[in-house]
Amino acid sequence: MKKYSIGIDIGGTNTQTALVSESGEVLEKKVIKTKDYPNYTDYIDTLCEIINQYKESQKDIIGIGIGAPNANYYSGIIENAPNLIWKEDLYIAKDLQEKVNLKTKVTNDANAATVGEKIYGGAKDLSDFIMITLGTGLGSGFYVNNKLVYGFTGSAGELGHIIIEPNGRTCGCKKKGCLEAYCSASGLVKTYQEISYSVEANLTAADIYSKAKAGNISAAIAFDKFTDKLAVGVSNAILITSPEAVFIFGGLANAEEFVIEPLKEKVNSLLLANFRNKTKILKSSLPESDAAILGAASLVFEL
Amino acid sequence: MKKYSIGIDIGGTNTQTALVSESGEVLEKKVIKTKDYPNYTDYIDTLCEIINQYKESQKDIIGIGIGAPNANYYSGIIENAPNLIWKEDLYIAKDLQEKVNLKTKVTNDANAATVGEKIYGGAKDLSDFIMITLGTGLGSGFYVNNKLVYGFTGSAGELGHIIIEPNGRTCGCKKKGCLEAYCSASGLVKTYQEISYSVEANLTAADIYSKAKAGNISAAIAFDKFTDKLAVGVSNAILITSPEAVFIFGGLANAEEFVIEPLKEKVNSLLLANFRNKTKILKSSLPESDAAILGAASLVFEL
Repeated sequence: MKKYSIGIDIGGTNTQTALVSESGEVLEKKVIKTKDYPNYTDYIDTLCEIINQYKESQKDIIGIGIGAPNANYYSGIIENAPNLIWKEDLYIAKDLQEKVNLKTKVTNDANAATVGEKIYGGAKDLSDFIMITLGTGLGSGFYVNNKLVYGFTGSAGELGHIIIEPNGRTCGCKKKGCLEAYCSASGLVKTYQEISYSVEANLTAADIYSKAKAGNISAAIAFDKFTDKLAVGVSNAILITSPEAVFIFGGLANAEEFVIEPLKEKVNSLLLANFRNKTKILKSSLPESDAAILGAASLVFEL
Repeated sequence: MKKYSIGIDIGGTNTQTALVSESGEVLEKKVIKTKDYPNYTDYIDTLCEIINQYKESQKDIIGIGIGAPNANYYSGIIENAPNLIWKEDLYIAKDLQEKVNLKTKVTNDANAATVGEKIYGGAKDLSDFIMITLGTGLGSGFYVNNKLVYGFTGSAGELGHIIIEPNGRTCGCKKKGCLEAYCSASGLVKTYQEISYSVEANLTAADIYSKAKAGNISAAIAFDKFTDKLAVGVSNAILITSPEAVFIFGGLANAEEFVIEPLKEKVNSLLLANFRNKTKILKSSLPESDAAILGAASLVFEL
């Protein structure tokens, strides 16, 4: 009998749920508004109702996987996530597991995407790889010896906050010179604004990609600086874990000619000779629309 | 019956060998001059003679562990090591194993020291830790999930060559701004010379430590800059693998008040809030005189 997992992707605005099979079919997707539940207990009750509906499908559901900001794999706790309305520590794994009697695992969004790439994406046959998610911020996950690296604390894989420019740009985390301050959607917008003296409001990374494709020099330079910095972050990571591949996920990964292609060359130039041309740099093969839910669900099928 | 390993530490000048017990007793240490053997085959023959003498001891010898520059764990090959006289690829693991019929493992010096810290040193009970060896260069090894990280290529753990200062000081590897260019014995000397305009010949890191202890301001500033850079490298590594401890090994680790103590504070200031005060920064507890041989021998007892 085919095995299924319930994937739950918790975001500040929406919470998505779905039944996901071992082979990656996404069924019965549902969405609730996270902010409709100022009381966390009501939120959990609603999730339990949804889970019980899934259980009525008579499918062989073996567990629940949750991707959430600031979620810790070891403790099962969401710790003071800035984008969620509940400010206390949320014992979400325990809370759900007790009520619906299904083994429940949680981790943060980037780690969930990384496991998703392993179970459903381009990393199926790889023991050692790195996933980088380029979105509002820069998230990452590391596979070493066929296992996701959680580390001693459960918080490993914060490539977005390594310092690549001492005393550089101030990051959202308050530190200076973090990779994320440059290599994220907002980082790209900021770089473009610095170069072009633009005061356009609500400019997005997608706008800058359109401009670059249309031949706008400032936009092209912004991407060039973006990949200069990203190459430092990626080559530093490669020198530490020597992965077979680095996957780039997120909207910016679609800007292949401005992100993936230049990145390959720049990373190589920053590696030691015995590392060059060994690690593939690839666009993630997770389908973008279902990536978060596939990532969450995949936790259940992880080794 | 107590189990033994034969440890072989291959350096440009000397090759050390010893019988090492599971519990870390170092017996029958021998030293030959590596440069006395311009012909690699003669070198291997001499090592085999020594190994056969060890075998005559009637002890339960279960294998041979070798630490050597540029040695690859997967292939068992020493690849074009700049400090060795033989320039071809050396199939040293295979060559010895065939002649003396003992399972033989090789890895580079820093990885060997890391396994040594795990088997014989302060990391016995740790699954996740980092070892940093401060010598002429900066070497490192990473334990994740109770295993040394070799990565896809077998070359993982090159923290010394992550870039921490874009377009910074030129490193021995020809790249610019590597951690090792600042945080090594030679890097410290160079920093001191830049600050003091010193033209003293043959200045060593130990001399600068003596000066700093005696109140020399330039020497103290050189150490301050040294730990500024080392803190970037160490915090970047912590953000990636989230280890329980970082061990600092080598002569400079003895300069505790100028290296280990300031490093603790500086690393903390560069970490994300949820990483602070979690990873211990410790001096290696491997005895310095036998560290290389213990590290090499420990490969045999590794999981």
